[in-house]
Order: sequence, then C-alpha cells, then structure tokens
Amino acid sequence: MTKPDVLRKIAARLRIHSLRMTTRAGSGHPTTCLSMADLAACLFFSEMRYNVADPEDWGNDEFVLSKGHAAPILWAAYAEAGIIPEEELLDLRKISSRLEGHPTPRMSWVKAATGSLGQGLSVGVGIALAQRLGCSPGRTFVLMGDGECAEGAVWEAAAAAAHFSLKNLVAVVDVNRLGQSEATSLGHDLGSYARRFRAFGWTAHTVNGHDIPAILEVLLKTRRSVGPTVVLAKTVKGKGVSFLEDLNGWHGKPLKEQELPKALQEIGQMPEVDSKKWVRPPLKARRPGGKNAFDLERTAFAEKTATRLAYGIGLEKLGRVNERVVVLDGDVKNSTYAEKFFEAFPKRSFQSYIAEQNMVGMGIGLSAKGYIPFIATFAAFLTRAHDQIRMAAYSFSNLKLCGSHVGVSIGEDGPSQMGLEDMAVFRPIPGCVVLYPSDAFSAEACVENAARYQGLSYIRTTRPATPLLYSNTELFPIGGSKVLRRGDGDAATVIAAGITVYEALKAHEELKKEEIGLRVVDAYSIQPLDKETIVREAAQTGGRVVVVEDHFPAGGLGEAVAASLAGGARLVHLCVRELPRSGKPDELLAAYGISASHIVRAVKGLLQP
Amino acid sequence: MTKPDVLRKIAARLRIHSLRMTTRAGSGHPTTCLSMADLAACLFFSEMRYNVADPEDWGNDEFVLSKGHAAPILWAAYAEAGIIPEEELLDLRKISSRLEGHPTPRMSWVKAATGSLGQGLSVGVGIALAQRLGCSPGRTFVLMGDGECAEGAVWEAAAAAAHFSLKNLVAVVDVNRLGQSEATSLGHDLGSYARRFRAFGWTAHTVNGHDIPAILEVLLKTRRSVGPTVVLAKTVKGKGVSFLEDLNGWHGKPLKEQELPKALQEIGQMPEVDSKKWVRPPLKARRPGGKNAFDLERTAFAEKTATRLAYGIGLEKLGRVNERVVVLDGDVKNSTYAEKFFEAFPKRSFQSYIAEQNMVGMGIGLSAKGYIPFIATFAAFLTRAHDQIRMAAYSFSNLKLCGSHVGVSIGEDGPSQMGLEDMAVFRPIPGCVVLYPSDAFSAEACVENAARYQGLSYIRTTRPATPLLYSNTELFPIGGSKVLRRGDGDAATVIAAGITVYEALKAHEELKKEEIGLRVVDAYSIQPLDKETIVREAAQTGGRVVVVEDHFPAGGLGEAVAASLAGGARLVHLCVRELPRSGKPDELLAAYGISASHIVRAVKGLLQP
Repeated sequence: MTKPDVLRKIAARLRIHSLRMTTRAGSGHPTTCLSMADLAACLFFSEMRYNVADPEDWGNDEFVLSKGHAAPILWAAYAEAGIIPEEELLDLRKISSRLEGHPTPRMSWVKAATGSLGQGLSVGVGIALAQRLGCSPGRTFVLMGDGECAEGAVWEAAAAAAHFSLKNLVAVVDVNRLGQSEATSLGHDLGSYARRFRAFGWTAHTVNGHDIPAILEVLLKTRRSVGPTVVLAKTVKGKGVSFLEDLNGWHGKPLKEQELPKALQEIGQMPEVDSKKWVRPPLKARRPGGKNAFDLERTAFAEKTATRLAYGIGLEKLGRVNERVVVLDGDVKNSTYAEKFFEAFPKRSFQSYIAEQNMVGMGIGLSAKGYIPFIATFAAFLTRAHDQIRMAAYSFSNLKLCGSHVGVSIGEDGPSQMGLEDMAVFRPIPGCVVLYPSDAFSAEACVENAARYQGLSYIRTTRPATPLLYSNTELFPIGGSKVLRRGDGDAATVIAAGITVYEALKAHEELKKEEIGLRVVDAYSIQPLDKETIVREAAQTGGRVVVVEDHFPAGGLGEAVAASLAGGARLVHLCVRELPRSGKPDELLAAYGISASHIVRAVKGLLQP
Repeated sequence: MTKPDVLRKIAARLRIHSLRMTTRAGSGHPTTCLSMADLAACLFFSEMRYNVADPEDWGNDEFVLSKGHAAPILWAAYAEAGIIPEEELLDLRKISSRLEGHPTPRMSWVKAATGSLGQGLSVGVGIALAQRLGCSPGRTFVLMGDGECAEGAVWEAAAAAAHFSLKNLVAVVDVNRLGQSEATSLGHDLGSYARRFRAFGWTAHTVNGHDIPAILEVLLKTRRSVGPTVVLAKTVKGKGVSFLEDLNGWHGKPLKEQELPKALQEIGQMPEVDSKKWVRPPLKARRPGGKNAFDLERTAFAEKTATRLAYGIGLEKLGRVNERVVVLDGDVKNSTYAEKFFEAFPKRSFQSYIAEQNMVGMGIGLSAKGYIPFIATFAAFLTRAHDQIRMAAYSFSNLKLCGSHVGVSIGEDGPSQMGLEDMAVFRPIPGCVVLYPSDAFSAEACVENAARYQGLSYIRTTRPATPLLYSNTELFPIGGSKVLRRGDGDAATVIAAGITVYEALKAHEELKKEEIGLRVVDAYSIQPLDKETIVREAAQTGGRVVVVEDHFPAGGLGEAVAASLAGGARLVHLCVRELPRSGKPDELLAAYGISASHIVRAVKGLLQP
C-alpha cells in the first residue's frame, strides 16, 4: 500500500470519527472538519514528528489548531495516533470530558486554547521562538481557517514571523471558501492570499487540499524554507458528503441521527489501517536547563522613583537569576522600562512593535513551552489584547503582564493614553493576580512575586515618580496589604493603591490637624484582596470606609472592596467618574475627585450623623 | 508665487507652530509633526475641500489623524485655516483647552478620538461608507504613521476598504522610519509597504514626503482611483531641524526653552502667507433626510424566544422607522440575528467578516457622520475590540453594541465562546448604558431604548430560548428594574438579570414550599442600575440580598449592586468563579453555582442567625 493510499484511509477514518462524534454530541462543526481531513492526515501521519508517549518531549513538532471549532478532528487525530482511546471520542463536549467543544489544554497535547479565531498564528510564532531559543529541532505547524485570515492579529503574527525569520514555522490555511454566515470575502481566490503572505515576507505555496500526493509534496518543500512558509490549500467544506459539500448554512451544525447513515455510506466503510504506525518520532532533544530562581537581590532605592522604572530594574535582576524569563515589548520599552531587560538579555527579548495582540499571543506560545514571559505596554493598550488575555486564561498560561501609565495621573497626554479600565480587564479572570505597587520597593517586590506565581498575573505601574514608603527588606506577599497609618480611635479607614496612597497620606495629615484619625491601607494586592485586613480595619474604624483609586468606577479596587465588605461597612468610593481630558497630573487628580481634599471631604461626610 | 512656494511657506509655519506649542506645553511629540508638515500643508491647503465655517457641511472632505500624537500640527493646520485663533495654539494640553495632547472631538473638527494607534483607518472606512451612503461628494483622508502599520487593525481596515471599493478613501502614510523606542521593522522600505497595500487590494503610490510638487502630483492621482488609494511618503522624523532629523531618542520629547531658538533659526522666520486663502471650499451637498423615528411596533411574541432573536426582530423593525440606523456584522449574523436587518436593508448593512476591531472602528466613523450603528457579535469576541470601544467613548460615538452568547448558559461550545467578562468591558465606561434583557419582550424594548439613547450602549443577549415574562406593552426604561415577585414579609431579595432571572423564579417557587418569601428583581438595566429600587427592596427584606449572574465575579451585576448598597445590606454574590468548560447549559449553571438550588441555599444561609 502506498503512503497516499494509507493517508487516504486515515483521512476517511478522521471524517467518519468527526461525523459520528458531532452527531452523538448533538452540536459541533463537522463540515469544517471534513474540509481539513486530508490535510490533517498528511500532517499527523506523515509530516509532523512527535513522541506519542510524551507531549512535553522537547524534540516534538508542535501543532496549533487555530480554527478551534474543528476540535473533533483534532481529537480524532489523537485517537488515531494512539494518544487517546478511540471510545473516548464519543464523550465529545460532555461536562466530564477533556474533549471540549473547542480545544483547551485540559487535553494535554493542546498547547493553547483556541476558538477565538485569528489567534493561533501568534501562538505558533511564540512556540517557534521557544523552540529556537531552546535549540529544539522541532517545528511548529498552525492550521488556520480562511475566514479567520480577516483578523488583523493574523497579519501581526505574519509580520512577526517574517521579522524573526522563523523557518521552523509552517502555517496551513484550509481555504474552504465558506464562513459562518456567508462566503468569505476572498472565496477561493488563493492568489490573493498568497500575495498577502508574500508581501508580509512569507514563502507561500498553493495546493489542492484534497490531493494527498500534492499535499505531501508541498509539505516536503516547507522543510527547506529560509523563513516562515504558508501552505494555502483549496478545499471544499463538507468534503466527502454530497449533501454538505460547499453549501452555505451547514456551519456549526451536526448531522441528525437519521442523516448520519447516508453520510457515512458516502464516505464508505471505516477503512482498516493502523494509523499509529505512521506517526514519525521526533529527533532527540533535551529541554534546556539553566538558572531557574526567583530571589532577586532587592535594590536599595534612595530617592523618589517611578514604579515603572522599578519594574524595569526588577525585571533585569530577575533575568539574571532566571533563564526562563523572556520579555516582550510593543515598542514602548523606554516607557515601561522593559528596555533594562532588552539591553541586558537581547536573546531573550522579543520586539513585537505596535502589535499588542500578537505580543500576548506570542507570550502564550512561549509560556506553553515553559518560558515565563513578561509583557508590558501602556495599560490602556493592553485592552487591544483583551481577547488574547482572555484566551491566555483558558490556556492556563503563565503570563506576567504589566500595564504602565495608569490613570489620570499620566497627565497631559490625555485620555487615549490613560489606563482607566485595566483592573476591570484582569480582575474578572479567575485566578488572575492583580498587583498595584505604590513605591519602587513594592514594585520590585511585585516583579519577584508575580514571577514566582504560577498563572496569569498583572502589575499596574504609574508614570510619575513617587516617594519611597518601604524598604528593600519589606515583603509584599500576594494577597497582602500594608496598614500605613493606624491610631487608637481612628475615625475611618481609607483604602488606596498606587498613586492614591500618597493622596491618602496627605489626607491623613490634613485630618490630623483637626484631630481626626484616619487609618490608611495600601491595598497593593488588588486580587486576591486582603479581605481579612480590610474587614478588620473597617470594623475598628466604626464601619466607615473610603476607597480612592485612579480608575473608572467599575471593576477596580472600589468594587472589590464593596464586594469584600458585603454589607459590613459604609463605603464611599472615589474614582474617575467622567471621561477625562489632558492636563497636569495634580490638576487631574483634583478635577476628577481623587485627591487628598476629596478624601478629607468623604471622611467628614461619613462622620456626619 | 507658485503653489509649491506657498505650500512650502505654510509647511514652515506648521513646523514653527508645532515646535513652539510643544515647548510651551512642556510635553508632546514635535518630531512626528515635523515629518508630516509638508504632507499636511498639501492636504489642508491644496487637496482637501472643506467649509471652514461648518465642520458638519455634508460636502466636506474629512480628515482623520490616525497618528494622534501629532495633534499639535493638526491644531496648527486648523489655526492656519482660520478655524481656531492662532493664539489659542499655546493652550495646547492645558486642562481648560480643547486642544488636547491627542485629538478628541472636544475640538469640533475632530470626528474621532485618536491616540491609540492603528485605529484611524477603520474610522476612515466608516466615514467613507457614510459619505457614499449619504451621497456626499466628499472624500476621506487618513494620515497614518508607519509604526502603527504593525497593528493588525490597519489590515482589517485595508481589507474592508478594498472589499467596499472605497474610491473616496485616501490613506497617507508618513513613513518616517522611527518608532517610539527604536526603528520600525520595515524602516524606509516603501516597497514592502506598497506590496502589502496592493496585496490587500489598494492602489499604492510612493513619494518623497518632503517634495511638495511630487506630493501634489500624487494626490492628484488619488482623485482618479477606482478603489482605495494609499500614498506612501518617505519622510524624515524631525525634518527641518538638524539636531532632531532621523535620530532615535526624540520621540515624545519637546524641545527645552533654550533649545527652541536654535531650532526656529534653522527653519527660518515665520513666513508671511495668508494660508486661509488656499483652503478649497467643498462642493455643495445636502445631508440626507429620511425617516428618523424610534417607536417600534412591538411584537406580540407568543412562545419562548431567545433574546438574541428578539434583538434581531427589533432591529429590523427599527430599520423600518429609522433610516439612520445601520448594522455591522462580524460574520455571525445568523447567530446574533442581525441577519434580519441584513435581509431587509442590504444597503445599510455592512459585513466586516471576522474582524471585530475594524467593525467597531467603522461604526465610529459611521456614527461621526450621523448614522446610528448597531454592532453585534458574540459578547466574548467584543473583547477583541475593547480598545476601539474605549476610543469610541472618547469619540462620543453613538454606537449600539450587542453581545450575544453570554455566560456558561451557551453550553457545549465551551469557554472560548462564553461572554463572561463583557459587563466588565462596558460598565467602566462613564455614560455607557448596559442592558440585559431576560425575555423577548424586554429584549425588543431594549433595542428601541438603546437607539433612542444618545451615546454608547450595550445589550447583552442570551443563546437559549427563554420563556415570556412580560408583554409588548410593558416599558423598560433605561435605569429601571422590574420586581417580579413580592410578598409581605419576604425574607430576602434576589437580584438577577437575563438567564438567572429564571433561576431566581424557580428558587422563589422552591422557597415558597417552605413558606419563605423571596422577592425577585429583574435588573435588566445593569447600568445605570435602579439603585432606588434595590436599596428599597433590600431594606424591606431585612437587608438580605442575593445577586446571581452568569458572569465572572468582577465588574458585573454583583459588584454593581455591592457598590450601590454601599454597606446597607448583607450580600451574597453568586457568579462564575472558575474557568468553565464545555457541557449542557443546565449542567453548567449547576456546576458553577448560579442555579436555583444555589439561590435557595444562599437565602437560607442569610437567614441563619
């Protein structure tokens, strides 16, 4: 039996599995599986090299299913490879199953969750960078849909792959012409796709995606590439079943039980073939070792210092003790101070230019291969990558994000540059740590603690330099807080973080003149919040609490405190309640109601009977 | 004096203004103004046609400064055109000034806020579509930076402009080679930029961006284009000042007071020229009239109906009475039911394919020209456009967003498709209305009320069909709520919205069997929240409140209620606290703790002494 004959049989098996699984589940996307079945057979059972016994084998080729709605055929391929039992396929989409509707790393061969389209190529770029950094002989294959090529993130990733000359990256686009609700803009115009990829610096091949010898030939060519390569495969959605082929209206619809036999009849009997035998094992490779510590030599800051600068200083120190740490920038490294790391460790520094989505997507890929990516830009611009951040959570990624230039305190650059919703991006994510240091000592400590934490974390840094409050021996555990001012008979507690800690301290001084005691809490750990301290301090100060933050009303510290108190105290929430404008930092803190004088007024208000 | 001589003088004036303004302000981006000064002179004083007396003149050419950090030269151009007094330029970046650090529509000629890079082209596409729809003779010019071409959103917009054959759209890219922190990836390789735009279906011209006759010639060519045209201009950052020209490290830095004279000396004395005389007036045009009502003929729904379907039905009815309504889709119109409008009003329907950023950006442009864009996709995928949504707020856009498929109640498709953070995207935005209907009647009413509201609004719709609770005569004012169950001596209040209203009603029935009264509030207006009712019902039920929502913990209904109560009640918050997985909707509501039985348990917990 020739190899194409074998692969045709495997492709038929993949089609049959996909149809059966989705009909059994009563939902799913069989037609998008059918269009890519021949491509999947050639990739998983001829071109790709992997160790079926170990998804973490450092020699493995990696696979990212960017068109995540084709999950059934991915699970089917792993079943054919002997990685999961065939009978498990019928558990697709059950609440108890690792075989979800769209891939997640609950199934251990999945390196990143997909299902929000147009993200897989960035993840692939990150994985390919990790393979190169760690001297893996493996390559990375990303299977994409044509519809998702409308997403700009694809072109950010394409530009990055060419910029990094990633010859170990292969994209395969299943050009099946049909989107969810109508035909794609380019239809079967493979020439247009090829011109676009070539203009972005790729080698592009076109092929009939159902002609197995032709697919094998073109995949062979990808091994000799000097940079990233794309295979543009012309396919038919629903291929193999006459009443599904190339028809609109079948996206995301399984066959009904009574329709299934007719479809299976057209594909023919389940072919006999031992697919496992055709998996190519990887080349031998060893995961890189290297320093892997987290204990920073903490800096003895001597004068007022911006937390963003302390972040950069801490990052560079972390790089010295931990070789798994990598840093990504979106061309603002002189503002976030990631440049400290870039200068010290150029090989572990990756410039994403002004392409935040791809920056986070690359981070997901690097994290999937065991690196610890620190990713910083202006907090406002992290909203650009909100969808990637969301998917990083479902990918169980170990990303360390940092948003600088938060709040109105940035001043004259104006609202487009102010991070005023960033806490509301990160706080909803279960398990995401959110840290908001006020001074340089706490900022550097936050870098260390974020690195040590396994999972998503976010550090919020401030533009202006702020006075020193702590020392380089002070610890800032995740979930903690600092009570900065405490007196017997304090009238109220003010809970602040970052820049507003200084306003709270000023308010404390103001009120002291009038013999009103104000307890001041630095809630540097926004999430998890130090509920115990907050509840206790609130209770000790007559249940009078003021929260003051340089953030919009929803989703930030104020609502976190309100939720924590759950009714146990009277709360006044000072925050930015209007769309702000350009101005000087102090003017803006005053104009938007988050300055010391507003705190003083709020405390006095709470003291009114 | 020849026209190029005049324009050279105007360009010198623009450079001098830009340097003076930023030095006076003590911050800003003069070097990026200098690179585009010759382009700006040619655009504002030769190529573009506009009525200096009326920024709303329907015949005007429109201008979008996508590289918003070059705001000073935009203000300078308006001063030269006689639109703003020259002396006002020195108010740049003051808190009292409309001349902000990055452009916002506080200055009436600015159609959309810019400053988050890579968004202007989408806005331009939207404006150009509006001009075509409204039979304006005007064209749209978008001035972009080269650095921002790394943003994927640029390529989404490029694809859309070609798809819509927008011959009235001209992009000018100021290729000055330098980004913020280093050189761009492509540097001065204009050929690469040209290949990319051409591959995306554009006509591309390259030009020396400091050669005024050459610029004029190429701009003349743009008038004869069959589709969108880009002018790629090779420029020098800091052009005109020897110690700034083409040097890294000067991004975002104004000259110091003592450096300014030397720079001004190099440019020469302020040339005498009456720039105003050179503005070309627009062709005559009348803003389109047409129906402009909001009163829908409400549907007499007769059986359980998904709120997303009712949204689509309402949208189609709105289209009948209001010709300003336009609808944008991201290839999910058969899921969001925007297809109802697409089928009825194809000319006012715009397909953005799977490119959510561009979809929202186009909406900003359409809104700027007076249209009312309704934009829907899966709520989860609106996170993709979070940065554009943020900028829509600063643009004072009248966008009506809708997110379907919210929460774990979507079921088997799994977490990547579940909108669980969408309320935390919209609630932070000051003035943004957030509506979350539970049944078809309320959903249709929300469409009407969102349309009537001037400003950003968001409607959250549910995938499964839900029973009818109301009638087609019931009103659902913004800021209201509905008390669905109320009895004397109710033990607690449950506040729910959308799918969880039904769980609350089931809990009410359960508890009734045990003679425990449960008040049920449908908080369909998430923002503004009906505080008065919530505080009152909480007080009447012993201060015992349960909130239940199909959303992550932060930024949603639970925290909104906690903030509203501000200590006036004991609160239990039921929401999705883990990263969810695929499963059946009912299984998932139960697994993640937001089902009727959890409400029953929470109420009983509150009743414990």
